[in-house]
Amino acid sequence: MTSAAPSEPARTGLTGDRRRNLERLFAPRHVAFIGGNEAAEAARQCQKIGFDGPMWAVNPKRRELAGLPCYPSVQDLPEAPDAVFLAVPAPLTVRTLGELAGRGAGGVVCYAAGFKEMGAEGLALERALIEAAGSMAIVGPNCYGVINYVKGVALWPYGQPGSRTERGPAVITQSGMFAINLTFNDRSAAFSHVISSGNQSVLGIEDYIEFLLEDPSVSAVGLHIEMLRDIPRFARVAIRAAAKGIPIVAFKTGASAIGARLTVSHTGSLAGSDEAYNALFHRLAITRVDTPAQLLETLKMFTHGGIPAGRRLGAFTCSGGDAEMVADWAERYGLELPQPGAPTRERLVAQLGSFANVSNPLDYNTAIWGHEDKVEAAHSTFLADGYDATVLIQDFPPLGSDIDRISNTADTRGFLAAARKAKIPAAVCSTLPECLTQDIRDLALASGAAPLQGIRDGLFAFAAAATYGARRERLRAGDAEDRYRLAEPRAIAGSARVLDEWESKRLVAGAGVPVPAGRLCRESEAIAAAEAIGFPVAIKLVSAALPHKTEAGAVRLGLASAAAVAEAVAAIKSSARQHVEGPLPDRFLVERMAAKPVAEMMVGIRRDESFGYVLLVGAGGTGVELARDVATLLLPLTRPDLMEAIAGLKIARILEGYRGGPAGDVEAFGDAVLKLAGLALEKDRSLLEIELNPVMVLPRGRGVVAVDALARSADVAGTTG
Amino acid sequence: MTSAAPSEPARTGLTGDRRRNLERLFAPRHVAFIGGNEAAEAARQCQKIGFDGPMWAVNPKRRELAGLPCYPSVQDLPEAPDAVFLAVPAPLTVRTLGELAGRGAGGVVCYAAGFKEMGAEGLALERALIEAAGSMAIVGPNCYGVINYVKGVALWPYGQPGSRTERGPAVITQSGMFAINLTFNDRSAAFSHVISSGNQSVLGIEDYIEFLLEDPSVSAVGLHIEMLRDIPRFARVAIRAAAKGIPIVAFKTGASAIGARLTVSHTGSLAGSDEAYNALFHRLAITRVDTPAQLLETLKMFTHGGIPAGRRLGAFTCSGGDAEMVADWAERYGLELPQPGAPTRERLVAQLGSFANVSNPLDYNTAIWGHEDKVEAAHSTFLADGYDATVLIQDFPPLGSDIDRISNTADTRGFLAAARKAKIPAAVCSTLPECLTQDIRDLALASGAAPLQGIRDGLFAFAAAATYGARRERLRAGDAEDRYRLAEPRAIAGSARVLDEWESKRLVAGAGVPVPAGRLCRESEAIAAAEAIGFPVAIKLVSAALPHKTEAGAVRLGLASAAAVAEAVAAIKSSARQHVEGPLPDRFLVERMAAKPVAEMMVGIRRDESFGYVLLVGAGGTGVELARDVATLLLPLTRPDLMEAIAGLKIARILEGYRGGPAGDVEAFGDAVLKLAGLALEKDRSLLEIELNPVMVLPRGRGVVAVDALARSADVAGTTG
Repeated sequence: MTSAAPSEPARTGLTGDRRRNLERLFAPRHVAFIGGNEAAEAARQCQKIGFDGPMWAVNPKRRELAGLPCYPSVQDLPEAPDAVFLAVPAPLTVRTLGELAGRGAGGVVCYAAGFKEMGAEGLALERALIEAAGSMAIVGPNCYGVINYVKGVALWPYGQPGSRTERGPAVITQSGMFAINLTFNDRSAAFSHVISSGNQSVLGIEDYIEFLLEDPSVSAVGLHIEMLRDIPRFARVAIRAAAKGIPIVAFKTGASAIGARLTVSHTGSLAGSDEAYNALFHRLAITRVDTPAQLLETLKMFTHGGIPAGRRLGAFTCSGGDAEMVADWAERYGLELPQPGAPTRERLVAQLGSFANVSNPLDYNTAIWGHEDKVEAAHSTFLADGYDATVLIQDFPPLGSDIDRISNTADTRGFLAAARKAKIPAAVCSTLPECLTQDIRDLALASGAAPLQGIRDGLFAFAAAATYGARRERLRAGDAEDRYRLAEPRAIAGSARVLDEWESKRLVAGAGVPVPAGRLCRESEAIAAAEAIGFPVAIKLVSAALPHKTEAGAVRLGLASAAAVAEAVAAIKSSARQHVEGPLPDRFLVERMAAKPVAEMMVGIRRDESFGYVLLVGAGGTGVELARDVATLLLPLTRPDLMEAIAGLKIARILEGYRGGPAGDVEAFGDAVLKLAGLALEKDRSLLEIELNPVMVLPRGRGVVAVDALARSADVAGTTG
Repeated sequence: MTSAAPSEPARTGLTGDRRRNLERLFAPRHVAFIGGNEAAEAARQCQKIGFDGPMWAVNPKRRELAGLPCYPSVQDLPEAPDAVFLAVPAPLTVRTLGELAGRGAGGVVCYAAGFKEMGAEGLALERALIEAAGSMAIVGPNCYGVINYVKGVALWPYGQPGSRTERGPAVITQSGMFAINLTFNDRSAAFSHVISSGNQSVLGIEDYIEFLLEDPSVSAVGLHIEMLRDIPRFARVAIRAAAKGIPIVAFKTGASAIGARLTVSHTGSLAGSDEAYNALFHRLAITRVDTPAQLLETLKMFTHGGIPAGRRLGAFTCSGGDAEMVADWAERYGLELPQPGAPTRERLVAQLGSFANVSNPLDYNTAIWGHEDKVEAAHSTFLADGYDATVLIQDFPPLGSDIDRISNTADTRGFLAAARKAKIPAAVCSTLPECLTQDIRDLALASGAAPLQGIRDGLFAFAAAATYGARRERLRAGDAEDRYRLAEPRAIAGSARVLDEWESKRLVAGAGVPVPAGRLCRESEAIAAAEAIGFPVAIKLVSAALPHKTEAGAVRLGLASAAAVAEAVAAIKSSARQHVEGPLPDRFLVERMAAKPVAEMMVGIRRDESFGYVLLVGAGGTGVELARDVATLLLPLTRPDLMEAIAGLKIARILEGYRGGPAGDVEAFGDAVLKLAGLALEKDRSLLEIELNPVMVLPRGRGVVAVDALARSADVAGTTG
């Protein structure tokens, strides 16, 4: 079972009656189960998890469900139920919802499929469901439901082995089966809530997050996302989560590129939906994970390990092989392994013996293996140098085997004691996921450390927590909500129109982005224009029908004389004729040649119906798609975020002055990008896409020049400024 | 416990007495255990695994070990033991080995540490050990030993939960702890052999592989490598493994770049040891994995799933979420998911119901979940389109929980039956590693399918098997041993010398690589030289002390007149003075300017003491380190392998003719690379490094020109040809 495409967003947020009804759903006084076998199983799960209020069953044809006597109808229930598990066919679901709304029920899990995922007929039924729901809190339809492991409520038609907890990560999944599989985990990922969101026809992922942020039992939020239905609201909720210190971890499936879209720019072809999701997650301090296991390990780190103040990891291993693995993955994930200082080194040699190889990771076990007190002492000595987090890498034999685990366990205890004293985020991590057995996980949890399973996912979790710690600071500033909420395009009417280079350049020049001195003229005026501007010049044929001028031979550069201009115009006409249908326009742009740049960059912005405005910045020129040295960002954009993105490009080394070359005017380039962003946001929200490529970045202090520009705009009044 | 740096290689291979002794070690008639607690534990493990021959203990101070009466010394043993587990301190290890050799023992596991990993003193002891060992088969020292699960022999001082098997993957690890952890796996990875190779003072990883290739119980070989001691011999053995159809999977730790080395070229800085290992593995059809879990999953695929004939995967899932995960990982790993044809689609709709979403992956479960016969029928219908391999994605609740698994299990059976009939490699794969429980793994194994755990590692394993199948064909050709064995540099004497550009170009021109027409002359002759060659020309100051001429201002290009030449010479002298100590040489190279290229490429070769010759080919020019668009290869190099590597570069799209530009003469570039490789191999094995950068690749049919060349050579007679 999986969800279909999202419904129309419920943009209003979670307020009033709907919010109160959602509270009733997750902390009900009484629960009703309506339907047949699925409802019976949900009732059993609710009994098993220890729900202590009244439980009622509704089924006109059965006498009992899971031992509960059946009421024939909703009308017959003794009270309006706070929470309902409703598992009847789709059309009956809608009718029953109407009855429940009439009775004043709180929240309802709608299990049935057969709604909008089934096409037009189902969509009509789903609209009727939304109508019938009134202000009730509706989960689904086409979902498995919800479990609250803190309050002890399961509206869940499937067996699950979890038990009650006081605090843990909440998970919200679009695929119901994925939620079921997560409940089967054997890695001590004890959730506070599990929510299968289904079609999200009323309540969406962003509503659940908003609600869970108010629940002190929620340590972190784990998401499985196929597609977000309301990204701007999701962003607002995520900013609030960061402010409250609740990390969000997202497993986003369906990463393949979005299909072909109407586009004339590189920006269009390079900025796929997956890159936009990455930009969104980075912006919002959300950790993106690759696999279900990595989702759980990262949530455990956030819940039990904590947030390191930095990336300096102090690591302990029982072998050189494990130490190499830690070093490899730390390097991959950008964790630092600072080496012990000389005094610490001396003290450790005294504790471990002169043959000890004192380094970070510390392969400690030669002399002290199995001696809890000595392990604790040595680890404490090591950690006294000051680290942001610490990990012990250790694998254990299967529980139930006859293999000795006394020494390993003593080592774990020693490490945990040292980590407690060091008061830094800590974890015990096995190299093979299954080799951190339940007993050791319980030891770690009791000591306030995370039990992490698998060397890759374990080190990833440390890095994710450190990255989160650094990123969330920006989202905690007082004005973060303004700076990081997403810009939403205004609704526009009218057909789309490609602006030619002259129009596009007037538009960006009007926004303050430097373009070359130039004149638009007829063929007959070209030489005079060139003489007025001063040689050398560039000449281009101007036509919106020729967005790729270079390929069409419609550009000639570095013309140093009148004769060269005349020859160039003739050559351009001859070449362009093969690329344009009908007569060529008699529009030529004569421009002053730009000085030799330090680097050719590009910047483009694409209006997107989901993400608002997607901005690409990176290495420019004709090879932009080949180099793919670009960063994707969303608007609005702060200067520090922009400059950090530029500094992360490969071409940054050239901009900084490469192999004796001059440094480029990166600040001026940043200005130009921000002005273009401002143009898209404020001056002209009818812009569909705009791209400057190349932007010549001149040596420091000499600015930038956008030597080519291309825009597509909704053809409404005032579009071209 | 881990191994130290390798000993001097035993280059002779595995022959004669040593080979016979290794056979005795792995299939012993009798086994002796010498030492204290470790020896006792090894004896217990040997008993537990069911060894059925005589077992003897040796300890002068104890009466018994693990119930075996102790002989006071090796001399007192009733016979020369075929296999020995020896766990006594390092110096005593050497003495005892001498006694065992004297008695004619076969193979000996030397458990003790304290050899070359401890520095100079230990190294002397290790030399003594090699001496004392004679022709015995020595495992270690500084190792845990060996287990043969097929014959039932454990020389292993640690508990392990594995049991006897008839066929499986053998694993050889440099880290002993890593081997122990592998034995703890809970993923049905039942090994044929486990070998902890330790210091490899006598027998090395390549010896074990060579030996295991002759054992029909070995399905595949898994390696944990910190560093190979004899790469050319490893390569020869790996070629033989491919010819025999035994896949090798390598987990290589210590991936961080090798330290700074004496180098003058880009090749030196770009060709790290990790890239060279990747080149080695690719060449030899060896799968490289990232984590211990991935090692085991890949070995299970090779052992139980088999080798797909291609990359077309037919996938089944129980949810849309799982289907998205399969699609994401298939795309990442280059697996294809061909969609069902129209007739198949129609038949599936008839079987699954009209609401079924018929696609690949097939989310089949709506209507037929739990109906084994219907699942089998639908899966058979789907697979009739013809796929290279098939997978069912399914997660199971924990064994021992009260959660129903009857329906899921029926589905698995249905899938397995369909896969058997389709006669293609098959696996059942869970999204969370722990959710493929033992019962289901056993079902899969009994049906000839692989049980794979974890969505990422599972899809990786399919891709690895398909890649292996394609790669090994080249290694199975009759002359593969010649073409793919590694070239080993000749021993050379003499100090190293950097050749200047003129010398370097004479060298490469002598090998048939085109260089520009040019003359070496004095300043006073420059204009005459330019006139003789024809304008425009390039002029460079020639000095081995100036390897980076561009940065030193020692190059002027595109000089179109005598006056320009005179000005350029003056400017070069003025600029170069700041970069050269002492007087400038009066050596100028005047060359014809190369035509405008399609692309600037580079090729470099570095002599390497481990890998022989490392060749880099890729995008050239001054930004080569920035673009990092290079492939690493080893010599000798076949033309198809070279052209495949070039085709895999980003710049290949430019070479093919990018955005209306001409295609480049890739064949001529391939010729030049192969000629340079020939030069390094045949004409001048004293070359330490040589690099051509840039090589101007001209439009197709017009060849290439190496416009700059740089070489470093051992300064021996005949070096510069």
